[in-house]
Amino acid sequence: MNKVEHIGIAVNNLEAACNLYAKLLNTQVYKTEEVTAENVKVAFLQTGPSKIELLQALADDNAIAKFITQKGEGIHHIAFEVDDIRTEMARLKSEGFVLLSDEPKPGADNKLICFVHPKSAGGVLVELVQDVRI
Amino acid sequence: MNKVEHIGIAVNNLEAACNLYAKLLNTQVYKTEEVTAENVKVAFLQTGPSKIELLQALADDNAIAKFITQKGEGIHHIAFEVDDIRTEMARLKSEGFVLLSDEPKPGADNKLICFVHPKSAGGVLVELVQDVRI
Repeated sequence: MNKVEHIGIAVNNLEAACNLYAKLLNTQVYKTEEVTAENVKVAFLQTGPSKIELLQALADDNAIAKFITQKGEGIHHIAFEVDDIRTEMARLKSEGFVLLSDEPKPGADNKLICFVHPKSAGGVLVELVQDVRI
Repeated sequence: MNKVEHIGIAVNNLEAACNLYAKLLNTQVYKTEEVTAENVKVAFLQTGPSKIELLQALADDNAIAKFITQKGEGIHHIAFEVDDIRTEMARLKSEGFVLLSDEPKPGADNKLICFVHPKSAGGVLVELVQDVRI
């Protein structure tokens, strides 16, 4: 894994959260986006080589809404950048980690992504992220 | 804030967690340490310019033990590196954030640290970290 690509934070209201995290990190949101496949809208702030991704649910039955119902607003996942997501998925599987999909999926910010089940990763929802080469 | 200095993860058993995260991140734990002031033992793994800090409670009444009782093992806090922690503490106070101490405290791995109350930071426990200049 090359670096922490981003940290995902579940929020109730994206606009309010953008203001809050812009103050906290002393920087501006540089991008917002809707990820229709996941029914969320997201915003990104940069801090050094990592991003903070704020996620608001657009439906009551999606993962972010359920997370907030169970645990409240807060840190939802850690995403690590990898060079070759399929190689890394195979390595993790061989080590006994459980992946949430057999194939990488398109994610926010022009990436290929795959999640590791938190039950196999110490309660942490881990995301693998690979840049899409255009 | 310069970068994500580390992500703190609350674990039940540091030895088991070290094995798990070494496999997950495909790297080795490079340092373990007891932080007597906080009653925790910690281990560090490097991923790019950020660290993963695994924290095990050494007493039932400390913050890590309480976190695990309430929420289970998982991501506990995000630490951001700053150049001058006192300047950053003053800036955050003036923006309305609530700090958990008026002065920076010594932290693990030879740092000066200060926490921001999660109630003032969208449910996220934020730590400021400054290198101690020797």
